[in-house]
Amino acid sequence: MKTTHYDIAVEFGDCDPAGIAFYPNFFRWYDASARHFFTTCGVPPWRELEREHGIVGTPALEVTSRYHSPVTYGDLLTVATWIDEWRGKSFVLRHEIRRRDDPTGAPCAEGREVRVFAVRREDDPLRLRAVAVPAAIAALCR
Amino acid sequence: MKTTHYDIAVEFGDCDPAGIAFYPNFFRWYDASARHFFTTCGVPPWRELEREHGIVGTPALEVTSRYHSPVTYGDLLTVATWIDEWRGKSFVLRHEIRRRDDPTGAPCAEGREVRVFAVRREDDPLRLRAVAVPAAIAALCR
Amino acid sequence: MKTTHYDIAVEFGDCDPAGIAFYPNFFRWYDASARHFFTTCGVPPWRELEREHGIVGTPALEVTSRYHSPVTYGDLLTVATWIDEWRGKSFVLRHEIRRRDDPTGAPCAEGREVRVFAVRREDDPLRLRAVAVPAAIAALCR
Amino acid sequence: MKTTHYDIAVEFGDCDPAGIAFYPNFFRWYDASARHFFTTCGVPPWRELEREHGIVGTPALEVTSRYHSPVTYGDLLTVATWIDEWRGKSFVLRHEIRRRDDPTGAPCAEGREVRVFAVRREDDPLRLRAVAVPAAIAALCR
Repeated sequence: MKTTHYDIAVEFGDCDPAGIAFYPNFFRWYDASARHFFTTCGVPPWRELEREHGIVGTPALEVTSRYHSPVTYGDLLTVATWIDEWRGKSFVLRHEIRRRDDPTGAPCAEGREVRVFAVRREDDPLRLRAVAVPAAIAALCR
Repeated sequence: MKTTHYDIAVEFGDCDPAGIAFYPNFFRWYDASARHFFTTCGVPPWRELEREHGIVGTPALEVTSRYHSPVTYGDLLTVATWIDEWRGKSFVLRHEIRRRDDPTGAPCAEGREVRVFAVRREDDPLRLRAVAVPAAIAALCR
Repeated sequence: MKTTHYDIAVEFGDCDPAGIAFYPNFFRWYDASARHFFTTCGVPPWRELEREHGIVGTPALEVTSRYHSPVTYGDLLTVATWIDEWRGKSFVLRHEIRRRDDPTGAPCAEGREVRVFAVRREDDPLRLRAVAVPAAIAALCR
Repeated sequence: MKTTHYDIAVEFGDCDPAGIAFYPNFFRWYDASARHFFTTCGVPPWRELEREHGIVGTPALEVTSRYHSPVTYGDLLTVATWIDEWRGKSFVLRHEIRRRDDPTGAPCAEGREVRVFAVRREDDPLRLRAVAVPAAIAALCR
């Protein structure tokens, strides 16, 4: 099970009037770490996959985040990301976010995302449809 | 069970290179609709609650979004929001997002958020702690 | 000189730890109002223009925002947008943001954006190049 | 004249349907680099300055960005940031963004921001007012 690590610096503009990172930003970080995971595994950028295989990305079907302790600007985080499960047409990404300077290693947030590989629909290129997980991509990510 | 409705216009800048709304934005919309829910129920803005009761907002413990069909710029949406459950120290918000021009009424996304009311900690005003759901606020929202 | 008006509600998540709207968000609002301007003038969405004319949008060459008074969540704003100048390959958008409940009519922020119409480059579809302002679009916006 | 350098990775979610970074994000990056500038110079985080000096941050009076070439996800950037001018109550930040792998060293974007140091108003803590540039902070940044 390959696991990658992606560094994030929490910025002032990521934080809300309560002084903590606005919770939707964690999904921005999960997504950045997911792209980093694929890139590290050797999967080309989506724009190349689109030209060659029509794949425009990995839209989410269902995402969950649990928040254990808030983070604020100046905090340096690492997102650990791996693929927990491959299904026929979808796959399950897992993410754990930790403070880089926290010796306990306790995650401050955990994410779980069910996603699909998607191509543009032939009848309407502005709409997407899921395709079977490409075997070559899955092989790179294991 | 009070339910409020909040209108959203999907913008170009909300969309990603696949041409659809970037999925973390749905949580921005859930959060905007949650604030609108409280305001509509008569709950003062958090900045007033902070001065009077110390409450700085309703941080999330666990959030989930399910995506049924993508949306893109130009789409006009409505978020229906209600509180599904009151617990001792937390409560469960539910959201359904629909296209305003969709006669089927099928939601294109659904959210579920477990949140708490939070105050600043006495020993460290930069950290937060959950408080019991204030009875006066819960009464306004039922 | 056509002028359109676009309504914005400032949200909690738009604000930073100082409690005011994080200043880059004003450009999100200028951009949303610019798209609304073109749509109101009868210009089709960029995704239709791309299929018919190759135009993928109106990238910015130079943008400026001046901030006169801060705004915060709960504030209801209107963006007035018009085109100040048509040049050969670029045009100048102007924006004024006002609180809807402010009887003085003084803008709380003003924007100025020099933009171009862009198509994908033949030698590299991932890069863009400016084209002459399409006469039909300019005519709709006057 | 101190100059700091701040690294940015352009993410999928930073890009719009034209496939390039949505232009308001450059101001997020300028702001992140500005905070990094102050931190590197030894200025404490705003939340500490607020407790000791009342300063809640450096709101913008006027900001400008010029865009020379678009960037997209996967691009690795560096923001060079310095203070170009100290005035009585304001100061001028300058930013240059370059691709880290571009041997020409040509900036793909340049920013200029006029900002002030701000404290909360005594009569209304939700509003801000500019104060003279604190001499101790200016000394750290020279």
